[in-house]
Amino acid sequence: MKDNFCVILAGGVGSRFWPYSTTSEPKQFLDFLGTGRSLLQMTYDRVCKVVDKENVYISTNRKYKDLIREQLPSLPESNILFEPSVRNTAPCIAYAMYKIKAINENAKIWVTPSDHLILKEGEYIDTVNRGFQFVAENDCLLTVGIKPNRPETAYGYIQIGENEVDQNLFKVKTFTEKPNVDLAKIFLESGEFYWNSSMFFWSAKAISEAFELYMTELARKFSDGKAFYNTPEEQGFIDKIYQSCTNNSIDYQILEKAQNVYVITADFGWSDLGSWSSVFALSNNRKDKNGNVVLGGRAMTYESHDNVIALQNGRLAVVQGVENMVITESDNVLLICKREEENRIRQFVNDTKVQVGKEYL
Amino acid sequence: MKDNFCVILAGGVGSRFWPYSTTSEPKQFLDFLGTGRSLLQMTYDRVCKVVDKENVYISTNRKYKDLIREQLPSLPESNILFEPSVRNTAPCIAYAMYKIKAINENAKIWVTPSDHLILKEGEYIDTVNRGFQFVAENDCLLTVGIKPNRPETAYGYIQIGENEVDQNLFKVKTFTEKPNVDLAKIFLESGEFYWNSSMFFWSAKAISEAFELYMTELARKFSDGKAFYNTPEEQGFIDKIYQSCTNNSIDYQILEKAQNVYVITADFGWSDLGSWSSVFALSNNRKDKNGNVVLGGRAMTYESHDNVIALQNGRLAVVQGVENMVITESDNVLLICKREEENRIRQFVNDTKVQVGKEYL
Repeated sequence: MKDNFCVILAGGVGSRFWPYSTTSEPKQFLDFLGTGRSLLQMTYDRVCKVVDKENVYISTNRKYKDLIREQLPSLPESNILFEPSVRNTAPCIAYAMYKIKAINENAKIWVTPSDHLILKEGEYIDTVNRGFQFVAENDCLLTVGIKPNRPETAYGYIQIGENEVDQNLFKVKTFTEKPNVDLAKIFLESGEFYWNSSMFFWSAKAISEAFELYMTELARKFSDGKAFYNTPEEQGFIDKIYQSCTNNSIDYQILEKAQNVYVITADFGWSDLGSWSSVFALSNNRKDKNGNVVLGGRAMTYESHDNVIALQNGRLAVVQGVENMVITESDNVLLICKREEENRIRQFVNDTKVQVGKEYL
Repeated sequence: MKDNFCVILAGGVGSRFWPYSTTSEPKQFLDFLGTGRSLLQMTYDRVCKVVDKENVYISTNRKYKDLIREQLPSLPESNILFEPSVRNTAPCIAYAMYKIKAINENAKIWVTPSDHLILKEGEYIDTVNRGFQFVAENDCLLTVGIKPNRPETAYGYIQIGENEVDQNLFKVKTFTEKPNVDLAKIFLESGEFYWNSSMFFWSAKAISEAFELYMTELARKFSDGKAFYNTPEEQGFIDKIYQSCTNNSIDYQILEKAQNVYVITADFGWSDLGSWSSVFALSNNRKDKNGNVVLGGRAMTYESHDNVIALQNGRLAVVQGVENMVITESDNVLLICKREEENRIRQFVNDTKVQVGKEYL
C-alpha cells in the first residue's frame, strides 16, 4: 500500500458548463449532482478508500489553491501540485511522476480525472486494486476501458486485443478518436471497443521510461529537477521549466505510441459528466414531476418541462413556458440554450471573449 | 405660476415588472427605455418645465427616500411626502393637498403618476397649462382623457359629455372599468371614450370641498393637522393618522361621485408603460435586427427573436433558441415567461411569497 500513489488531475476549466462553471470555479469544484460534495470531493473520498492519504496528490492551477484548501481541508498543502500554466496532460503527469519518484522509486501511480462520476463504488475499487496489482507485476502502462452501453459519440474508444491476458485485461489494439454515430454503433456491436475513461496506472519506472523514449526533451527537463522535488525549491524550478513545455497530451504522445499499453475493462457506472445532457440523464432521482432538474438555487416552474436550471446559490428561477432548455448562470452571465444545442456552448464562450470581453468568462 | 403646484405619485411597487422592478427599486426608479433617466426623473424633468421647482412635491413610501434623493438631487427634502404605509391614492392625495393648502390657500394642484411615458412633450405641456388655467377659473375637478388609438383592454375609459364646454374640454359622463375587447372596440368607434391617464387638476378649494363632501372622515383627519403641516411635527402627525386611513382610491371615492368633474382630451403620445408588451412596443428604436429588446445589461442572441431581456446592470445574457419571451431578473430572482403570459406575473409574485418567501420580492 505504501508504494501506491494517486494523482488527481484538477486543472480543467469546464467550459462546456459555462457560465455555471467558470474559470474561477470550474466544474470539478461544483456539486453537480446535489450530493453536498463537489465532484473533486467525491473523487478524493473514493481515492482515499484505496490509497493512503499522504500518497494522494492533486495537480491543479495555482488559482485554485484556495478552493482546494477549502474543499479538502485534510489534504496536506505539500500534496497539491501547481501547474504555472495550462499545458495539457503530459507536462503535469510528468511533473507528478518525477516528484513521486523522488519520494519512492518503487511507486505505482494511478492518474485519475477529478470530475467524473462513479455510480458503483465497489466495482470501481476492485478495478483500482487490480490496476495497482497489474502494474506492480508488469512493466506496462494500463488504461481503464468502460463497457459501453450506447453508441456514444462524445467519448474516445479503446479497442482491445484478441487475447485476454488476465481476467478482463487485454493489450490495447488501438485508441480511436470520438467516432461518428455510425461508427459508434459498429464499435458497440463489435464488443471490442471500450470507452476511454482517462484513468491510468503505471509504475514510476515504466512511465519514466516511456517519457524518456517518446518525450525525451520533456523527460530531461523534469528529471533535471530531481534535487529540487519535495524541497522549498520545487515550485521555483517548476515555474521556470513549465513555460518552455509545449501543450501535449499523454494519450497522443505516449499511450498511442508505446508498445506495452494494456486496458482493464470495467463497468462501474461511469460518466465523464461531460455535458448538461449527461447531468440531466443522471439526475432522475431529483427531477421534479415535469422532469426539470434544478441545481444551486430553487425554481418555480409553470408549463415547463425537461429543463436543466443551474443557478447561483440562493437564487430563485420562476420559469413559464420553457422546455428542453439549459438555463444557467454565473455572477455576471446568464445562459439560456436548447439542451440539444449545448455543444455550441464552447462557441458561445469564444464569441463572448471576442465580442464582449474576458470579464464574462 | 406661484399658485401652481404638482404632486408626483411615486409610491407604487411595479409588480407587473417583477423581478426587474422590485419593492426595493420599483418601476418608476428604473430606466425602462434606455434614455439614461428613470421614469421618475423624466416625469420630474417634464413637470419642472411647467411648475416652479419649489412647488413640485413627490409622494412616496419612506423606503424610497434614498432613491429619490439620489435620482433627484435638486429636489428639497421637504418636498418629499412620505406615506407611512400603502393606502391607495385617496389618503396620499389628501395629505398632499392639505399640506399645500396650508402653504397657499389659492393653490392649483396637478396630480400625476411618476411612471408613465409621454412622447409628445409640446402637446403635453399645452394640456397641462390649459388644465391649470381651467381649474383656476372653474370650481371643478379636471381629469385628462387620452384619445385612444386601439381597443385597449388594460385601461379605464372616460366617457365625455355631449357638449364641448371649452376646446377639447367636456363634462365627464361616466368613468368605466377596464372593458373587454368587444366593449373596447365599441368605445373606440364611438369617439366618446378616452383613456383615463390618471392625471388630475383641481384647486385646493375644490378638492378639499370634495373630500369634505365625499370622504368626510378622511377630510377631518387631515384638516385637523393644519397646525402641523410644514413644521417638524408634520411627519409624526401623518404617521399617527395614516394607520387609521382605509385603502381608497380617489377615482372611486370622489371622481365617480362628484358632480363637477370635467375631462380635457389630449393626444400627447401617452403610455402607462403598464406591461412588458408596452415597453416592447415602445422600444422599436432599440431592438436588435431580430427584434430583441435588451435593458440593463447586454445580450448575445442566437436563433432568438422578439424577446424582452431586462438584466441587472453589468450582466450578460447569452440566449439561444428563445422567442417571444420576457427574460428578466433581480439580485436573487430570474423570471422567464412568455410575453403573452405576462399578465400572470402578479400571480407568480404571490406564488413566490407563499411558496418560497418574501425575501424574493
